[in-house]
Amino acid sequence: MAISPRSVPRDLSSLPHVVIIGGGFAGVAAAKVLADQDVRVTIIDQHNFHTFQPLLYQVATAGLEPADVAFPIRTIFGHAANVRFRHAYVRSVDAPRNLVILRDGSEVDYDHLVIATGAKAAFFGVQGASQFALPLYTLADARRLRNRLLSVLEEAEVRSEHERAAIDLTFVVVGGGPTGVETSGALTELVKIAIRRDGLRLDPARIRVVLVDVAPRLLTAFVKSASTYAKRRLESTGVEVQLGRSVVAIDEHSIRFDDGEQIECAAVIWAAGVSAGDALPEDVSSTRGPGGRVRVTPDLRLLDSANVWAVGDAAAVPLRGEAFCPQLAPVAIQSGRHCAHQILHVINAEPTTAFAYHDKGIMATIGRNAAVAELPHGVVVKGRVGWLAWLGLHLWYLVGFRNRLRVFINWTWRYFDWPSGPRLIVADAETVE
Amino acid sequence: MAISPRSVPRDLSSLPHVVIIGGGFAGVAAAKVLADQDVRVTIIDQHNFHTFQPLLYQVATAGLEPADVAFPIRTIFGHAANVRFRHAYVRSVDAPRNLVILRDGSEVDYDHLVIATGAKAAFFGVQGASQFALPLYTLADARRLRNRLLSVLEEAEVRSEHERAAIDLTFVVVGGGPTGVETSGALTELVKIAIRRDGLRLDPARIRVVLVDVAPRLLTAFVKSASTYAKRRLESTGVEVQLGRSVVAIDEHSIRFDDGEQIECAAVIWAAGVSAGDALPEDVSSTRGPGGRVRVTPDLRLLDSANVWAVGDAAAVPLRGEAFCPQLAPVAIQSGRHCAHQILHVINAEPTTAFAYHDKGIMATIGRNAAVAELPHGVVVKGRVGWLAWLGLHLWYLVGFRNRLRVFINWTWRYFDWPSGPRLIVADAETVE
Repeated sequence: MAISPRSVPRDLSSLPHVVIIGGGFAGVAAAKVLADQDVRVTIIDQHNFHTFQPLLYQVATAGLEPADVAFPIRTIFGHAANVRFRHAYVRSVDAPRNLVILRDGSEVDYDHLVIATGAKAAFFGVQGASQFALPLYTLADARRLRNRLLSVLEEAEVRSEHERAAIDLTFVVVGGGPTGVETSGALTELVKIAIRRDGLRLDPARIRVVLVDVAPRLLTAFVKSASTYAKRRLESTGVEVQLGRSVVAIDEHSIRFDDGEQIECAAVIWAAGVSAGDALPEDVSSTRGPGGRVRVTPDLRLLDSANVWAVGDAAAVPLRGEAFCPQLAPVAIQSGRHCAHQILHVINAEPTTAFAYHDKGIMATIGRNAAVAELPHGVVVKGRVGWLAWLGLHLWYLVGFRNRLRVFINWTWRYFDWPSGPRLIVADAETVE
Repeated sequence: MAISPRSVPRDLSSLPHVVIIGGGFAGVAAAKVLADQDVRVTIIDQHNFHTFQPLLYQVATAGLEPADVAFPIRTIFGHAANVRFRHAYVRSVDAPRNLVILRDGSEVDYDHLVIATGAKAAFFGVQGASQFALPLYTLADARRLRNRLLSVLEEAEVRSEHERAAIDLTFVVVGGGPTGVETSGALTELVKIAIRRDGLRLDPARIRVVLVDVAPRLLTAFVKSASTYAKRRLESTGVEVQLGRSVVAIDEHSIRFDDGEQIECAAVIWAAGVSAGDALPEDVSSTRGPGGRVRVTPDLRLLDSANVWAVGDAAAVPLRGEAFCPQLAPVAIQSGRHCAHQILHVINAEPTTAFAYHDKGIMATIGRNAAVAELPHGVVVKGRVGWLAWLGLHLWYLVGFRNRLRVFINWTWRYFDWPSGPRLIVADAETVE
């Protein structure tokens, strides 16, 4: 949704400058709060678009297009005279001099700095994982994964003529959280649609989707009944769920577990976790919490700073006691907003307040027509009602009415079973010319 | 539109095998004719999608998404039991042995072969053109051009702070045919929208779009009044039209003409012509016509062959006398259909007939709200009526109802001036990570 602030006709250059690194949920939420205030805002991101990450698995499985889940940051703030966008990669932060250093060497000075750099896939030292496993955290990840999945199907059809082993249609998804559950469910759908709609000559019995996790149950953040439901639903759509399994090595065509067992497969999808540390600019030498996340004060400042803030996946946002908030979109949005309000307090010489996370529940979809949502106070919604709730909520939160309508049309189509989804293999680089 | 042929329950392997190289307009049109006939059909293409080329300039100027103009070939023929798709690159044709050789060395035998390989941008030996000019013939071209245009705007905004010369916002479009006219018109719109909607801090007076052609008028395939109208319309939207100019060299930031004049510019867009020869598989050693096109008999066979056919942009399709049909979508569609019918005639031992092009007119759009269409008998339609005719015709011909609706929504949005177009810079390869 484009912001329409009250007009800001005054001279901007004299206003305090807030620099936000990262245009994800947290950075955009912070900038929206600041868009009609007496500050100058610069959002710096290496991509010129905001990504709606909860739907990336749909892009990866060819249900949605990149433009359905990505929205230009400039367009979001097009009417906010005090918000600028800078398409650049941040190399480091020179906190003593209040400077952000870009890759090309140019410097951007700030009065307040918001670190909203998100996270990157974490491979936990599993041998070969960073080279061969396919993560799903950025739009580029999603496109790469889609190209791989569709190419595997194309190649498998040709090989079937030569009577090759069925092993080449096994896909392993590592990680039983929402991303892993959603991706493995959507992957079985993609294969079925490709066979039914596209006349792909493949025996459905050759397809094997395996979801593995080291934990004893799926969706560990949810109550146990949700985990049980998700497992049963996934298994009914053909996904093989293997729990309590620890991955030790991955190569181009196999995955190996600590018990020595090995699964030969066409692709390993990595949904096992993220690390904030690798996404941080150099020289942000603050104390780290779990997952490389920057430790912050209750009002979201770095422990050693008065004007550098950290929010979203990049920050170890305090929950209560010694616990930290999970790395979820609602936490990112709420912490981004809170941080922006605190910056205004500091500028106005007012006291800041501690961040408090308002948990509105968590949800995960499991293939078509089913989802599980856990609301506060342990209320669990399952099945089609859960799916409709999931759909409505995601459409509501999608940035931009236009995207919302596009996604709605795409999903309506898919739901009513018309030839759905743009199953395009769009090469990253033109390898064949 | 998905094909729903009468069911084909018989054993396919005994049927004559028609191999079609290329899933463009010509190849798809031929396969549609053959989809419910007593033949086996294999379409081979290096991309798994059909591209609606007349709208590529919209993708390049961020008005449409790749998925709006591309449609998976498998989905088009999903219900046709006798049509298969093979995602592969054809290296050569071994005509004496009736074999198509793929890049991986595997062979595909045929009874009839249809060469529908289209064309590639031709640079006519202009120095530096193949390296620095940006063509617009494939979906990959369009994405590359869009990334370049949007990146140039991003960089220019930053540089304006340092008071750099205005030269970095000059774009030169080479070629005054429909593609050049459409692209230069859409480019001025893109820049205006980016400034108005995205809050890009650029002085519109810095932007310069120059359309050059060696001919003395634009749209030489049209009657003169259409050329005059197109020039006037383009100039009124801010495009600088320079005619009778011959390009001799292009480098990263300039273009030079034969009179020694040089224009410094941020990008050169190449819409000056195509060559069929570079797109042909090796060993197709048939006689060549203009633009490297394969000479064909009146019934569209290679001059030296009884069972190899050529259609669309790849072929020098006879018009009348010594003339050849222009390289246009309607010629591709009609020649593809004709060729398919002739193949059926040959299989049934019936006489073949000569191809006759039914000219239904040509059209080009000139920015928003204006187009020029030349119907048979010299009837010319201009302005908004021409634009609506252009819009309707293109929506009608778009493969797939789904795409048609998506494009319609995108265009309606743009027309009514809502924040339009997905101005995403999606890197081909992740250069910044």
